[in-house]
Amino acid sequence: MAGLRGGIDLGGTKIQTVVVDAGNEVRGQARRPTPTGGSPAGVAAAVEEALREAAGTAGIDPTQLVGVGVGSPGTVSQADVVSSARNLPGWDGSFPLGRTLSEALGTEVRVGNDVQVAVEGEFALGAGREFSSLLGVWWGTGVGGGIVLDGKPWLGRGAAGEIGHMVVERGGARCPCGRRGCMEAYAGRAAMEAEARRRHQDGAGTDLFKLMHKHDKPRLTSGIWERALDRGDKIAAQLIGRAVEALGTGIASAVNLLDVEAVAIGGGLGERFCDRYMDDLRAEMQKHLFVDEDPPTVRVAELGDLGGAIGASLLIT
Amino acid sequence: MAGLRGGIDLGGTKIQTVVVDAGNEVRGQARRPTPTGGSPAGVAAAVEEALREAAGTAGIDPTQLVGVGVGSPGTVSQADVVSSARNLPGWDGSFPLGRTLSEALGTEVRVGNDVQVAVEGEFALGAGREFSSLLGVWWGTGVGGGIVLDGKPWLGRGAAGEIGHMVVERGGARCPCGRRGCMEAYAGRAAMEAEARRRHQDGAGTDLFKLMHKHDKPRLTSGIWERALDRGDKIAAQLIGRAVEALGTGIASAVNLLDVEAVAIGGGLGERFCDRYMDDLRAEMQKHLFVDEDPPTVRVAELGDLGGAIGASLLIT
Repeated sequence: MAGLRGGIDLGGTKIQTVVVDAGNEVRGQARRPTPTGGSPAGVAAAVEEALREAAGTAGIDPTQLVGVGVGSPGTVSQADVVSSARNLPGWDGSFPLGRTLSEALGTEVRVGNDVQVAVEGEFALGAGREFSSLLGVWWGTGVGGGIVLDGKPWLGRGAAGEIGHMVVERGGARCPCGRRGCMEAYAGRAAMEAEARRRHQDGAGTDLFKLMHKHDKPRLTSGIWERALDRGDKIAAQLIGRAVEALGTGIASAVNLLDVEAVAIGGGLGERFCDRYMDDLRAEMQKHLFVDEDPPTVRVAELGDLGGAIGASLLIT
Repeated sequence: MAGLRGGIDLGGTKIQTVVVDAGNEVRGQARRPTPTGGSPAGVAAAVEEALREAAGTAGIDPTQLVGVGVGSPGTVSQADVVSSARNLPGWDGSFPLGRTLSEALGTEVRVGNDVQVAVEGEFALGAGREFSSLLGVWWGTGVGGGIVLDGKPWLGRGAAGEIGHMVVERGGARCPCGRRGCMEAYAGRAAMEAEARRRHQDGAGTDLFKLMHKHDKPRLTSGIWERALDRGDKIAAQLIGRAVEALGTGIASAVNLLDVEAVAIGGGLGERFCDRYMDDLRAEMQKHLFVDEDPPTVRVAELGDLGGAIGASLLIT
């Protein structure tokens, strides 16, 4: 039981925890919903419980772990304080998540950005493991990114990787961030839903919202988009095509700047649609790649549902 | 005389050479026009002569140099072979520039990309010397770039830094590279001249071409643009404004991805106009920066005409 590490993926809807061994094999895991109300302290308590449960399934106590890594939304300081995690309840300000969990669990805790740790997981163990440089593009509610250069994460001044807010069209669509023409304004799930709603209200025929109600979902999940596509919904197909176009443009811009060996596409929409749309994505990139005879390898993330938590566990070395 | 190094900036119009000492002080220099016809071997011979002349002004023979660094256009291989240097005569193919110069000069020669070595010069000795990460944007005939991260150049697979071909407007203006919507399609001098010519032919009143002929220039040099601006030429002001807008958008996109500490603007147009348009450039960046409360420092390149050659000399360490 020596050398076990914990990993936590703290998301807006669920908390996924794992315990992995020195070979990064999963020895225990647990999942629970993220609290929808309350305070950061309440979220931290739910995180603690989820990690205890994973440790229990691995047959150990958290104090026996070498340490626990956490992938968190929001801005993460050097001292593992998390700020502005706006998809978590009551978390507009700052909360010392690392210290709180470390005291509660009795072991070292390190916190990183959720997308960055997931990308590092793919770099070490998944879609990027053969390469020395990787751009990760996490296509979900928003579009996040993570960068690994020459084997090491590149964090800039702490906010690197915001590929979703690279501009693909000046003066273009309004982004959830408030700016115009960002890649996320076309490709983020939230922006896609808002655009579907506008087109629906303008009279465009689509089953997207019918399917949403039928399956009792509060929003257009990636599963709802897939069902609509499968039944030939034109608006769904148009909006996914528009998203893939923006992704291809933005990724090509990033590759022109960084010339990485490989690109990994993850996130809820990415894992569901990237294979299906891979040819379209490559074709869109090709239009804008400056060195177009040698495009980077593009792959779907391979670590699946546990990828974020496994990537977080790599914060402990 | 110990520790002297040579540096060569091989450009499409001129060859600038320097000899610097261990403290990077310039001890000798020479400049001559780049041959406009002939072959890569002929260009190499002119480069050799220019370096010999700089060595002569420093009172030494080239064989006494520790080595010579060259900043070259085109693609530079690990073995210092230069390919596709299309603004040099007869250089569509490949030529072993490093080996040829090394044999001719009797000292070690290393070749790097012209923009990248100029950016490394600014990083080490100029506008970027206080920072650990720098994005260089060279605004001239085209728009090139160079990246230094954590004190080290980032070259990717050899083609990193092509910031001029990041997309700012999908389906937008045609770029000299043949693609659409690149930053260079709006900001590169060649693209700006083509657009000025189109507007002029469409009847827009401008003195740009009159000034070009009066000063006996073959094209709209940065000096001609400046004269036109100074006399209130509207087309000149519009097109420079349009260039600054594209630069601001593209630089902000790059900063959203890389989160560098500082940006240095160089190149013929950059050194001439960046101070004058710095407020506009910052305002354009601000519209698109994701972390807009903490923009990077933006500065004009400081090393001047000799910057490229001094930067190239840093290839020898």
